[in-house]
Amino acid sequence: MVLQDRAKATREAIVAGAAVVFEEHGYGNASLTQVSEAARVTKGALYFHFQSKEDLAKAVIEEQHRIVMAHSEAILGGNQPGLTTMILMCRAFGLQLIHEPVVKAGIRLTFEAATFGQPVRGPYEDWIAAMERLTTQGKNERQIRSSIDPAALARYIVASFTGVQMVSDVLTGRTDVMQRIEEMWALLLPGLMHEDFHEEPSALSRLISTGESRLKRAALL
Amino acid sequence: MVLQDRAKATREAIVAGAAVVFEEHGYGNASLTQVSEAARVTKGALYFHFQSKEDLAKAVIEEQHRIVMAHSEAILGGNQPGLTTMILMCRAFGLQLIHEPVVKAGIRLTFEAATFGQPVRGPYEDWIAAMERLTTQGKNERQIRSSIDPAALARYIVASFTGVQMVSDVLTGRTDVMQRIEEMWALLLPGLMHEDFHEEPSALSRLISTGESRLKRAALL
Repeated sequence: MVLQDRAKATREAIVAGAAVVFEEHGYGNASLTQVSEAARVTKGALYFHFQSKEDLAKAVIEEQHRIVMAHSEAILGGNQPGLTTMILMCRAFGLQLIHEPVVKAGIRLTFEAATFGQPVRGPYEDWIAAMERLTTQGKNERQIRSSIDPAALARYIVASFTGVQMVSDVLTGRTDVMQRIEEMWALLLPGLMHEDFHEEPSALSRLISTGESRLKRAALL
Repeated sequence: MVLQDRAKATREAIVAGAAVVFEEHGYGNASLTQVSEAARVTKGALYFHFQSKEDLAKAVIEEQHRIVMAHSEAILGGNQPGLTTMILMCRAFGLQLIHEPVVKAGIRLTFEAATFGQPVRGPYEDWIAAMERLTTQGKNERQIRSSIDPAALARYIVASFTGVQMVSDVLTGRTDVMQRIEEMWALLLPGLMHEDFHEEPSALSRLISTGESRLKRAALL
């Protein structure tokens, strides 16, 4: 490896190690010693890349947001209708909250930042903007009712998704998060769907648990 | 005042002072010295009532939950239909999040407890149980569609309300929280309302901003 590649690999190992430590202990209780042990790097290497625990937490939040946005862009690249894409994005985020340590840690740190009085607004704003564009698209495609205000729906989807995964975390350690996201869409869709869009709401909300395969088989995508 | 009354008044002053300190500084940064100053009691009196910062935080969360539940019971006592009562309970909680220091602090501490790995489940469970009973009532009254599962709707209303007020706090310091709660209901109602219930969804969701007076005048309650 050339020197630049090695530095990049070390930085990535530190962020991954920090994610594991923050996810387990939270921001307040995490120590840089724990991070250097989890990442298998020396404290010198750690301090070369990050000045403080705050720097590390910011890097984990940025990496989490990058992962979520990369998955979202891959879904957007599928060129599916707007409403379908919104549901698939929520599905992908839900799965990352279960399987990706950096995403779990980033969400925990984002909540902690809010409670420590330094709210992290960017990820919410980016996600709301994406949902607003998709709502407008879904209205043009006659999937979503013309009476729906895209800005209001986008803010509500993001806020409501945030609450659903958070309450699932408090009550069940997120073991029921996919079921709760599916229930969210099952409850919302009958009030959102355009009169000309004749899919069953429950078939659309089941995208959360079944993914794209079923609708693809039915040639609905 | 007899001794018991004085002790009770001191305890109440301490809880009120702790709420102000926790709401401003968060659990991690709050100190017992700040609480004794805010409550205008000696540290001796403080330690007589509370052994630790954790004890104090628990007392604030309990008092917050008591206030929210007392308001909810007053609304329940109005014997209005189930769905109407659910909307009015969300309205009351939203107003308390703006105006009641103990409620603001209690919610902040509840979120902090979740991020510190000691989740506070009781308030969520109590509120979900109340919403479930009201959904069943609303179904019997033909305000709510027969296809709605009361347990699923109750969990979703509580989770979604939690997210709405939290994201409003992050993005606007809760200045838009009542508008966001109204939007939540405006988006949900068309999919929830029974076919035989001919109120306009927007008239019902406007209960959030206008309270009961308008519907009372229209003799709908």
